[in-house]
Amino acid sequence: MYVEQEERKDTKIEGVTIHETRIGNIEVTTVEVDQKGAEHIGKNPGSYRTIYSNAIKRQDTKSQEETAKVVTKQLLELMKKNKIPKDASGLIVGLGNRNVTPDALGPLVIDKVLVTNHLFVHEPQYVKEGYRRVATIIPGVMGLTGIETSDIIKGVIDKYQPGFLIAIDALASRSMERVNATIQLSDSGIHPGSGVGNNRKELSEKTLGVPVFAIGVPTVVDAVTITSDAIDYVLKHIGKEWKEKDRPSKSLTPAGLNFGDRSLSEDDLPPIEKREKIFGMIGALDEQEKRALMQEVLTPLGHNLMVTPKEIDGYIKDLAHLLAESLNAALHENVTIKNFSQYTR
Amino acid sequence: MYVEQEERKDTKIEGVTIHETRIGNIEVTTVEVDQKGAEHIGKNPGSYRTIYSNAIKRQDTKSQEETAKVVTKQLLELMKKNKIPKDASGLIVGLGNRNVTPDALGPLVIDKVLVTNHLFVHEPQYVKEGYRRVATIIPGVMGLTGIETSDIIKGVIDKYQPGFLIAIDALASRSMERVNATIQLSDSGIHPGSGVGNNRKELSEKTLGVPVFAIGVPTVVDAVTITSDAIDYVLKHIGKEWKEKDRPSKSLTPAGLNFGDRSLSEDDLPPIEKREKIFGMIGALDEQEKRALMQEVLTPLGHNLMVTPKEIDGYIKDLAHLLAESLNAALHENVTIKNFSQYTR
Amino acid sequence: MYVEQEERKDTKIEGVTIHETRIGNIEVTTVEVDQKGAEHIGKNPGSYRTIYSNAIKRQDTKSQEETAKVVTKQLLELMKKNKIPKDASGLIVGLGNRNVTPDALGPLVIDKVLVTNHLFVHEPQYVKEGYRRVATIIPGVMGLTGIETSDIIKGVIDKYQPGFLIAIDALASRSMERVNATIQLSDSGIHPGSGVGNNRKELSEKTLGVPVFAIGVPTVVDAVTITSDAIDYVLKHIGKEWKEKDRPSKSLTPAGLNFGDRSLSEDDLPPIEKREKIFGMIGALDEQEKRALMQEVLTPLGHNLMVTPKEIDGYIKDLAHLLAESLNAALHENVTIKNFSQYTR
Amino acid sequence: MYVEQEERKDTKIEGVTIHETRIGNIEVTTVEVDQKGAEHIGKNPGSYRTIYSNAIKRQDTKSQEETAKVVTKQLLELMKKNKIPKDASGLIVGLGNRNVTPDALGPLVIDKVLVTNHLFVHEPQYVKEGYRRVATIIPGVMGLTGIETSDIIKGVIDKYQPGFLIAIDALASRSMERVNATIQLSDSGIHPGSGVGNNRKELSEKTLGVPVFAIGVPTVVDAVTITSDAIDYVLKHIGKEWKEKDRPSKSLTPAGLNFGDRSLSEDDLPPIEKREKIFGMIGALDEQEKRALMQEVLTPLGHNLMVTPKEIDGYIKDLAHLLAESLNAALHENVTIKNFSQYTR
Repeated sequence: MYVEQEERKDTKIEGVTIHETRIGNIEVTTVEVDQKGAEHIGKNPGSYRTIYSNAIKRQDTKSQEETAKVVTKQLLELMKKNKIPKDASGLIVGLGNRNVTPDALGPLVIDKVLVTNHLFVHEPQYVKEGYRRVATIIPGVMGLTGIETSDIIKGVIDKYQPGFLIAIDALASRSMERVNATIQLSDSGIHPGSGVGNNRKELSEKTLGVPVFAIGVPTVVDAVTITSDAIDYVLKHIGKEWKEKDRPSKSLTPAGLNFGDRSLSEDDLPPIEKREKIFGMIGALDEQEKRALMQEVLTPLGHNLMVTPKEIDGYIKDLAHLLAESLNAALHENVTIKNFSQYTR
Repeated sequence: MYVEQEERKDTKIEGVTIHETRIGNIEVTTVEVDQKGAEHIGKNPGSYRTIYSNAIKRQDTKSQEETAKVVTKQLLELMKKNKIPKDASGLIVGLGNRNVTPDALGPLVIDKVLVTNHLFVHEPQYVKEGYRRVATIIPGVMGLTGIETSDIIKGVIDKYQPGFLIAIDALASRSMERVNATIQLSDSGIHPGSGVGNNRKELSEKTLGVPVFAIGVPTVVDAVTITSDAIDYVLKHIGKEWKEKDRPSKSLTPAGLNFGDRSLSEDDLPPIEKREKIFGMIGALDEQEKRALMQEVLTPLGHNLMVTPKEIDGYIKDLAHLLAESLNAALHENVTIKNFSQYTR
Repeated sequence: MYVEQEERKDTKIEGVTIHETRIGNIEVTTVEVDQKGAEHIGKNPGSYRTIYSNAIKRQDTKSQEETAKVVTKQLLELMKKNKIPKDASGLIVGLGNRNVTPDALGPLVIDKVLVTNHLFVHEPQYVKEGYRRVATIIPGVMGLTGIETSDIIKGVIDKYQPGFLIAIDALASRSMERVNATIQLSDSGIHPGSGVGNNRKELSEKTLGVPVFAIGVPTVVDAVTITSDAIDYVLKHIGKEWKEKDRPSKSLTPAGLNFGDRSLSEDDLPPIEKREKIFGMIGALDEQEKRALMQEVLTPLGHNLMVTPKEIDGYIKDLAHLLAESLNAALHENVTIKNFSQYTR
Repeated sequence: MYVEQEERKDTKIEGVTIHETRIGNIEVTTVEVDQKGAEHIGKNPGSYRTIYSNAIKRQDTKSQEETAKVVTKQLLELMKKNKIPKDASGLIVGLGNRNVTPDALGPLVIDKVLVTNHLFVHEPQYVKEGYRRVATIIPGVMGLTGIETSDIIKGVIDKYQPGFLIAIDALASRSMERVNATIQLSDSGIHPGSGVGNNRKELSEKTLGVPVFAIGVPTVVDAVTITSDAIDYVLKHIGKEWKEKDRPSKSLTPAGLNFGDRSLSEDDLPPIEKREKIFGMIGALDEQEKRALMQEVLTPLGHNLMVTPKEIDGYIKDLAHLLAESLNAALHENVTIKNFSQYTR
């Protein structure tokens, strides 16, 4: 499983443009990285779009439809930006292991998308205007096939010769909050998580010879991340309490009600000397050091579990449905955000 | 889905050698077809082995183990006959659609076989003597991938370069009796069922460049076959009754007990004039004509259903287990018919 | 598995009223049986409604929605006829074995219906107007639980005390044509199929003490029925050909085009002497005798297979969706045939 | 989902006897609580047995068989202690939601255990000596049935009248280490986790009228527990480092090798003033206070996720197999730890 790419909202870096919008409860962050920016931040140049939505976790089907519309729009923009012609044929690749629920997202999306290529080839008389050629492949995972996933995909590309490729994968999250709550699109391919020591090879235009769009959803998180996030939340919580203690309004609020907005922000993080008071030397460590320490302790004990929410079976089904709707609408002119729910159930 | 190959036990044809053995309740029919024989009977030359066993239908796990042993032995013989070296790498292909239970046999076998190739490549220090390189692929079906299955397999072969290929598939049966009761092996590849008008291309040494072994199990049967078989059984039943009427023993047997052995043979089929009496002009038709008539009537009505036994979910699981055991034992020296059950659950 | 009840459209019997309507491609047959009629035909008195629709077999989701609307209407009528108050609490029972695909209809419907009883009990503040109390139970099958299904249901009724019960079950079909194409409703309960020798006890108002509505869908059929139906189709086909031979129009129709309407009717059945010519003494047997003979031959051979269409996995999912929509709309005022698809996916 | 009972190994309390044994890599802790002890520790009196084994997490099938043998022995002892006659009929209850993988343990065990009651009732001639009457029920969860689970069970008990009951359930763990690694047996029934605010009622001899044995396996854990455990591991890790710094052997060990035994013990926890140095005021909190603080922070944010390991699908299957083997061997004289694997696959 790949690890999601780190976000860098906080910095003003040459060659990196960040843009944030909000549609209802859905947030979209767009990060454009040019060649120069790529060198600065150590990522491939390209367009990175993150859609943040609680619709899956809240099992709210109406809001899931709204999210699918936003994903469709972002996907269309990415394709346009990369000048994909409207009749270019697409290959959708469902990465992951269908027998491991949190890793089954890719295969389940493939089960639900519209496939048309065989009709174009064998029964062109039945293909209406407004559809493009789409084929799919579920390559499996190396532990089950014994073959590098990238080799299987290359083999299929050699025969099918698609105009572009869309790869869908479940990811390991860098934050508790984002698990099953963010959908990440990019046009820079999929890269093995360096932190995982995984040998699977890059899937990108460079290695495959066709434009590669990646759609990733973090569905698992490790114990180190959970702990690191939890420590941060405690620091911010106490920091906020201290700040608010001095605000007059606070004196009128009954205890326990100061969680009105139920959210904590970066600003709530207290200064380092206070952090040390609360969490000792651990509190003084920065994000990287804290994680490194925890990893050093938990991993040899076999306790750096990779975990997924208990309700994952339902989440994955809903995510597969949402992404299949978005893909159908982005790929075929005849399918739109108005009628996409008729093409998937 | 491919249609199983027709059996031709009844004939003495030049270039075709037939051999039958029985191990306990398991029957094995071996048909060797040379170039001359191939021309006569319109099949590819090669070795065809059919293992007949009731173990799956009777859900008898002990007898399933016995059957797995026989399948292992036949598979080993086929590989030896084709001079597959003991260190040749194999690619096991699980044909069929895993979302359609009677067609899911191939994918389910793949879920259960030993895969070793990635260990040879990435962790050779952990590979013990007595194992060969094995990789697998589940190519999907054209209706879901949009791509010819044979193209996907060719693409993978180009990258992985196996020494030989084993393809596993569920078949359409030519007889009610054989559904889930026969396992068919051959070294002549898999050929699209001509009767089905299916365009999928041949998988054979000729098209793929490596030796191809096929393992097929008939899991579905059509209404025409069921009806045709049922008419035959009625004819034989009445034929047998008539024959036995004249035997003195019969007069002492109470009615209804003449089914002692519960089996009917070709010899019980009455002569044509009697068949006509029982089944009119239909009774006088030969097998082919009877099927053709029925097909002509049922197909346009949409009533030539392709069906599978109600208990198929359990049968397919047991079949996948049985074949995975046989494959593991046939492919790796360290796995034998004595210990193969430890490698699959 | 229960066997569907025999239909008796052909007769004019005292105490039995038959009514047929058609909505688009959907046919509805209503049979009202009073006490006198019940004695004549050997069925319980009550209202029997059969909805015939090809929507499932044709995998046509739009037409499935139309069918769900018709089922909703019939269910509402049945409930009204039995004077079920709008606030009576309901218990939906999903009969069958979820591990056997063609028998999993009941459990899968339960997975998809709205359940409200626990909200009424524990969180009444969240229950809006327009919903009634609904609970569900999946009792399992005796082979897996070891307990009579009717005993489990009685035990639950004793505790939950519902106002009425709706039982959903997959059935064995009496005709090839009706498999996965008819939905049968009645207010006379579910009765063990006498032909199957099954000891499961009746589920009815008499045995359970509350009104019992049954919803059944034939999903399997046996080899005897397939053969018997196929013989009938052949007879009708030849009968029709003979009739049309004499019609002037026929002479102008190219061969093979006389199947224009692709349907055969009872009227196409030729007279008995012609039937004998075609199918010999078998052709002269009536339906019952033909089946009895076939059963006598096939059953001892173990060849009276109970089968289901190859595509059953998809059919059962669609049927469960359709019935869940209908049940939600029939049970809750707030759910209607206009919005029922929002409550099930 | 219930929360596992807290362990209290550390104390010497009147009325509580603790006994620990080890068989190979499997540890068994037995805690006997009498009436007096029950008052002291706030648990029901009874026998509590915890089997600790890494066999599931390591996916080691051989070691899983060993664990199943230990579970069988403990279960037999518990039954003997409660004087269950060898011909008493048992009811096995599979608690939990089969559509939520980490909660599906109960239903999956039921799918695999031997059920005999219907044979005793309907076909006694086929029941050999050495089997007892066993029935099963999968009552579902209140969110899906709308009915209290305990009411469904009571209803079934009223009809079936078993001699004793065995309830199987997945639990929420109180420690990261124990997830999927402990099997907990007791004869004191199942009690709703007070910490979860769950209203489901107790299942015990007091409420059900028959002896109740509970088998629980922790399969999920919350973010608070993960964080709390991780903080403890860090404290112990640093504590151990400090201790070992002064030991002469340490000076000869290359850096990073002091994890030779990969385990940390309670003794490694540094004294409070050192804990405060490392983790500030958080380090000075005791277990309960630390959890309470974290819960206060994470819960309102919606971040106290209940999680399960990524590999849960495979773990649950293996656990169900292991428990089914143990149950079959404990319940039927004819099934023993020597042959139990023949009764489950």
